[in-house]
Amino acid sequence: MAEATTGIAREAPASEADHPRDSEVARFGADKPLQLDAGVTLSPFQIAYKTYGTLNADRSNAVLICHALTGDQHVASRHPVTKKPGWWETMVGPGKPIDTERYFVICPNVIGACMGSTGPSSTNPATGKPWGLDFPVITIRDMVRAQAMLLDYLGIESLFSVAGGSMGGMQVLQWAASYPQRVFSALPIACATRHSAQNIAFHEVGRQAIMADPEWRGGRYLLEGTNPRRGLAVARMGAHITYLSDAALHRKFGRRFQDRANPTFSFDADFEVESYLRHQGISFVERFDANSYLYLTRAMDYFDLAADYDGFVANAFKNTPTRFCVISFTSDWLFPTSESRAIVHALNAAGARVSFAEIATDKGHDAFLLDEPELFAIVRGFLDGVGQARGLSRKR
Amino acid sequence: MAEATTGIAREAPASEADHPRDSEVARFGADKPLQLDAGVTLSPFQIAYKTYGTLNADRSNAVLICHALTGDQHVASRHPVTKKPGWWETMVGPGKPIDTERYFVICPNVIGACMGSTGPSSTNPATGKPWGLDFPVITIRDMVRAQAMLLDYLGIESLFSVAGGSMGGMQVLQWAASYPQRVFSALPIACATRHSAQNIAFHEVGRQAIMADPEWRGGRYLLEGTNPRRGLAVARMGAHITYLSDAALHRKFGRRFQDRANPTFSFDADFEVESYLRHQGISFVERFDANSYLYLTRAMDYFDLAADYDGFVANAFKNTPTRFCVISFTSDWLFPTSESRAIVHALNAAGARVSFAEIATDKGHDAFLLDEPELFAIVRGFLDGVGQARGLSRKR
Repeated sequence: MAEATTGIAREAPASEADHPRDSEVARFGADKPLQLDAGVTLSPFQIAYKTYGTLNADRSNAVLICHALTGDQHVASRHPVTKKPGWWETMVGPGKPIDTERYFVICPNVIGACMGSTGPSSTNPATGKPWGLDFPVITIRDMVRAQAMLLDYLGIESLFSVAGGSMGGMQVLQWAASYPQRVFSALPIACATRHSAQNIAFHEVGRQAIMADPEWRGGRYLLEGTNPRRGLAVARMGAHITYLSDAALHRKFGRRFQDRANPTFSFDADFEVESYLRHQGISFVERFDANSYLYLTRAMDYFDLAADYDGFVANAFKNTPTRFCVISFTSDWLFPTSESRAIVHALNAAGARVSFAEIATDKGHDAFLLDEPELFAIVRGFLDGVGQARGLSRKR
Repeated sequence: MAEATTGIAREAPASEADHPRDSEVARFGADKPLQLDAGVTLSPFQIAYKTYGTLNADRSNAVLICHALTGDQHVASRHPVTKKPGWWETMVGPGKPIDTERYFVICPNVIGACMGSTGPSSTNPATGKPWGLDFPVITIRDMVRAQAMLLDYLGIESLFSVAGGSMGGMQVLQWAASYPQRVFSALPIACATRHSAQNIAFHEVGRQAIMADPEWRGGRYLLEGTNPRRGLAVARMGAHITYLSDAALHRKFGRRFQDRANPTFSFDADFEVESYLRHQGISFVERFDANSYLYLTRAMDYFDLAADYDGFVANAFKNTPTRFCVISFTSDWLFPTSESRAIVHALNAAGARVSFAEIATDKGHDAFLLDEPELFAIVRGFLDGVGQARGLSRKR
């Protein structure tokens, strides 16, 4: 019976934690511990990752893609759990702006996540059981430190570019700050140098929703054969609103009723927008681990680049050789353009080479994942330009 | 034992439902049923209300205050559960903009709420038990219809003014639409003629948080001696963010840590904004009923004035004699100024007398409840002006 109950709980998401499907796995043993900002080490640990394209002879064409909060390594190929296309297939692939016929693309799952890199649903080697809340709290810098170890493992000294949106953009900024000599160019998209009070507040509501679910069991749900599905679904629903915009919700749903002409005078999902949100919550739970949601939101909350550099973001980029292209979206209210402008000002103050684009769209924060021709054109153009500076041939 | 358990659940909020403290109660028997938009009647029912000041001889100085989602009748005097001052004491009282030395102020608890007007935590006379989800789903128009019956009961034919913010503002608009001859002037503040898709979405997340709490028991928690505190607290936390603004949260909390200099690397409330939100959630649960939260959010979602008037808001106000003062706040993103402008445009199209003010503040939607001198000056000036038109003496 215990087996059966556990079977339910360790379904899809948790089963990827130790043995991710359709992924490469880099394992780091006791000789290669990961130093964490919390003051402890993580060892052994592993990073699940995907690669696309071919590394050229002088190893100068590697592009690192950093994923967002609920993303993973399956950036440009079918997701093994949802069976859906990769989350950035519009951006990454043969002939796409991040062209896998030209660049060698690496996309690692971040540590703390649940798709094969070590995180709270992974097996704790000390106990043989899932880490749960015994997993150390990690930071964006810890994620990047682990990715640097992955690059060492892959024998890649320097990245042609590192790109990502949202939490991925935070990693991009951290990469450029921590390892300026390893980052030829950087594309931080729809992000900020620190998480705002409002964003921390939204994250805290999501965490409280998860922790309020009795099935969460103090984080021990995998051990106890439960799953805080309802709490995680509520967290996702709330967060999902922040990824869109008032205008996009109005355009997509307005006040239309779902499959009916009149209100039901009940608490059913009368409005299309309610059905849509419920679906977002339910489908998310099938692919994501609740504790990973806690850890990754926490990492974003803690992100504050200035705090590590005497209170000045510019100090993080002093004498940086990296070429930057900063991108924001007009209707993004989670990481509004003002945050990207602050990045640009800091880079200017540091004397960095930086270009900046604000893209007009009503799609909100999620625009970076969607079909935005201007975004594609800007990324393609930027990489073409820095590719020439790097001496990359136009086609391999 | 059943008694003891029930005792816990029927603590503070629920105990006000049938026998509200420090309130007047108007009871409507079988001869005076309330016709509901859902197509059913509510009978018997009661309205709990407060009055302040004195009705003048020709009954021409009555001001109706309509409360918001989580407000109640205790507008200008101590709340019997929280022991805190009334929710609008800055606006209503002797010498205040809505001057109780001049006007006779009536503030009813809306039906569906939990402070003494009939709602889901009231006793269903048919069963002798709390209504729970057997309570009919109500609308803003139903609330206003009940308030009109209260005015009949009080012998007040015509209101000098009706005022309210947020859900209160929706009631103000509905009053002017449903009973134009009974409304001499109207002050809809920080509201809209219909709830937006984004606002419906935020409400739906709150409802899902409540219904996901196993203590909710399909709405039968009062009967079963439980209380969905955690779900309701999560709902409140999420909603509370929408009542503020990014700028206000940044000004009040920024990224400051709570009682410490460095992060704890845990899921404790490290940041001040997290502590603040948790406190908002916990204290709300002590005074509010979870089912009422479902019913009142639903009523707001259903509000769509145009839908009742052939798709045109202007038709709701055709030939209206009412004088309007519409007010919005620059940083209110729940009911942004564009919504108030739409009200003004409709009133203009209907040939109504209307003034409009957008008040510059960073306090967000909640600004209507806070110390906003410009708001007070505008309300005072508007009421002075329409008082002259009504023939009210400057001081009684």
